Amino acid sequence: MRTQVAIIGAGPAGLLLSHLLRRQGIDSVVVEMRSREYCENRIRAGVLEQGTVDTLNEAGLGERMAKDGLLHHGIELLFERRLHRIDMSSLTGGRSITVYGQHEVVRDMIAAAQRHNHALFFEASEVSLHDIESTQPQVRFTHDGTQHTLDCDYIAGCDGFHGISRGTIPADVLRTFERVYPYAWLGILANAPPSADELVYAHHERGFALFSMRSPDVTRLYLQCRPDERLDEWSDDRIWDELLARFENDQGWLPNRGAITQKGVTPMRSFVTEPMQYGRLFLAGDAAHIVPPTGAKGMNLAVADVRVLSKAFASRYLDGSTDLLDAYSSHCLERVWRAEHFSYFMTNMLHPSFDETPFVNRLKLSELKYVSSSHAAASALAENYVGLPFAE
Amino acid sequence: MRTQVAIIGAGPAGLLLSHLLRRQGIDSVVVEMRSREYCENRIRAGVLEQGTVDTLNEAGLGERMAKDGLLHHGIELLFERRLHRIDMSSLTGGRSITVYGQHEVVRDMIAAAQRHNHALFFEASEVSLHDIESTQPQVRFTHDGTQHTLDCDYIAGCDGFHGISRGTIPADVLRTFERVYPYAWLGILANAPPSADELVYAHHERGFALFSMRSPDVTRLYLQCRPDERLDEWSDDRIWDELLARFENDQGWLPNRGAITQKGVTPMRSFVTEPMQYGRLFLAGDAAHIVPPTGAKGMNLAVADVRVLSKAFASRYLDGSTDLLDAYSSHCLERVWRAEHFSYFMTNMLHPSFDETPFVNRLKLSELKYVSSSHAAASALAENYVGLPFAE
Repeated sequence: MRTQVAIIGAGPAGLLLSHLLRRQGIDSVVVEMRSREYCENRIRAGVLEQGTVDTLNEAGLGERMAKDGLLHHGIELLFERRLHRIDMSSLTGGRSITVYGQHEVVRDMIAAAQRHNHALFFEASEVSLHDIESTQPQVRFTHDGTQHTLDCDYIAGCDGFHGISRGTIPADVLRTFERVYPYAWLGILANAPPSADELVYAHHERGFALFSMRSPDVTRLYLQCRPDERLDEWSDDRIWDELLARFENDQGWLPNRGAITQKGVTPMRSFVTEPMQYGRLFLAGDAAHIVPPTGAKGMNLAVADVRVLSKAFASRYLDGSTDLLDAYSSHCLERVWRAEHFSYFMTNMLHPSFDETPFVNRLKLSELKYVSSSHAAASALAENYVGLPFAE
Repeated sequence: MRTQVAIIGAGPAGLLLSHLLRRQGIDSVVVEMRSREYCENRIRAGVLEQGTVDTLNEAGLGERMAKDGLLHHGIELLFERRLHRIDMSSLTGGRSITVYGQHEVVRDMIAAAQRHNHALFFEASEVSLHDIESTQPQVRFTHDGTQHTLDCDYIAGCDGFHGISRGTIPADVLRTFERVYPYAWLGILANAPPSADELVYAHHERGFALFSMRSPDVTRLYLQCRPDERLDEWSDDRIWDELLARFENDQGWLPNRGAITQKGVTPMRSFVTEPMQYGRLFLAGDAAHIVPPTGAKGMNLAVADVRVLSKAFASRYLDGSTDLLDAYSSHCLERVWRAEHFSYFMTNMLHPSFDETPFVNRLKLSELKYVSSSHAAASALAENYVGLPFAE
């Protein structure tokens, strides 16, 4: 088997890359270890930047998103018992965010691939990368009991933080940067109509809480917890009591209660690998970098990487130039570090840390008051949240 | 002896308070443990916010400042070998800063007090505060070998971080917030004309450096160092080598060299005490809060406190209302925490910390790039640096 670009991973990064390449006449094959069902139902991020939405629309992937996505023009910050709205759109010249689950994006992209009979291998096993330093790299994998060898020009490692691609690069080539936070998120889905139209980020002395939504009938809620929190200690009643305590405010707003249909603990990690490329292997998305969920940047960064990478491949195949491929990592890392900083800033500001000094916790309150009252500071938060323009 | 307001400390806070009270016909006496010469020559901060300059001008203290102060409309951030200008004035609707040494401000205020034969006791010893919970507090001190008892209505504790006032408040009443940084500044004065018109804040992997100026003939320079740095290990040559290494850039700018006339190590500390008042005692300036010097906020906060306090005393004596006095601490602390956060932000961004992870140090570079390229982020930095408007 032979292709131009072998893509490891059928998450948003890998699927979007194969889609964008196909539209430019560049051949690719996607190899994924998980099942299609798993990929289509994996609940992850749900906040799309303006530029992500634009990218999906330009790629012809926006039809269902336009119908089911929820357009948001602001967020609420809740602290000291009051809601403070950050009006994203008015602060950024009309940009906005769209709440549309990552798994929905994945479904749309798999459906598009299937309409074009694009080669997607789900449930591949024994996946390995070879000769990535040569001009003839290979991907080997087993599918339906048959061993395959996929010869290619390039490999795109889009297989997430725990994937095999990053580990294929010699350790002495990579420099990694990491922070593991001393807290996590306990997330639930509840069958309850969202009681607000926008996300509510609450800073409370008991801990951070986030109100979000999945659809007009489903509310998504999070509580700051310990990284080793045990779910069996969290009855539904305890979860609601804690949520209502942290969201308490003088304006009378509260989330609606409903049956809890899912519970899970999300760890909080920041991670960057440099460079994001080695030989003929290019890393994109979570394979190269992780952000804590507070800034809602994970999937958006993956889309940004893939935009750069698909243009670089187009330049290589259509114009014969490898300049953009050579510059891929340094191009992407500017945006990656911006998003890493923003995610770190939002995470630190919103989470009282029980490991930190009272001084640092007081600064968080001062910072919240400042971003809620200064036009300049609110604009800085807003332009990062809706996503800075792509540099191109 | 009897006065309305007894003021402990003849630094900028105490002297300005006595000056503003006198202009409203309110009697005060200033008691200072150091000599006049010491107070007039103590080298401290030198960057005055727009609001501080306005306050001094309105109080009739601006004549020499207008002549000798250096008006600055921006600062330079130096990182990755390039200078990036933050145009304070254009980002803040025309506000600016004035470089004028704190000891010059003190000289102007002592001169004004003497023109009015205002009671200033320098070199007071055995200073103690009494009955601050009663309506008849007292200050006792020894001056020129004579014991004095100063009866008063109120006491203003303007005697700095190491003064006696704060300690007079029962420990269980006060809550303190503190951060001691893992680095300090080695500062020098050099007989060399400043080679740039504005301050240059340099972030270098060897450590932070700051270029500043005292006058058209004297350059003021700082190097990030260890808190326990030994001055005898720093020859003049070593200082210049280190400065030139940290200021190295591709634009060819460098500080001028000259004879070093003074060397010292400035520790870096953040500190806040809450509340800033107890009974009839009101703390102002460094007696209540300390900031690291990076944001140039120390003296400006002292002036802001005193503005609030002098208006509160005016309301008490001229209108008979204690509402403003009662609200003094909560009023001041809003600005104090804003300045604490800004000083912490500037300090962290500009100092590579050898105790921190590579991840956190990379974030600092991302933050520097961001404040140098985003109008919103640069505006937020600028509005804090020139000083947010007084809330009144």
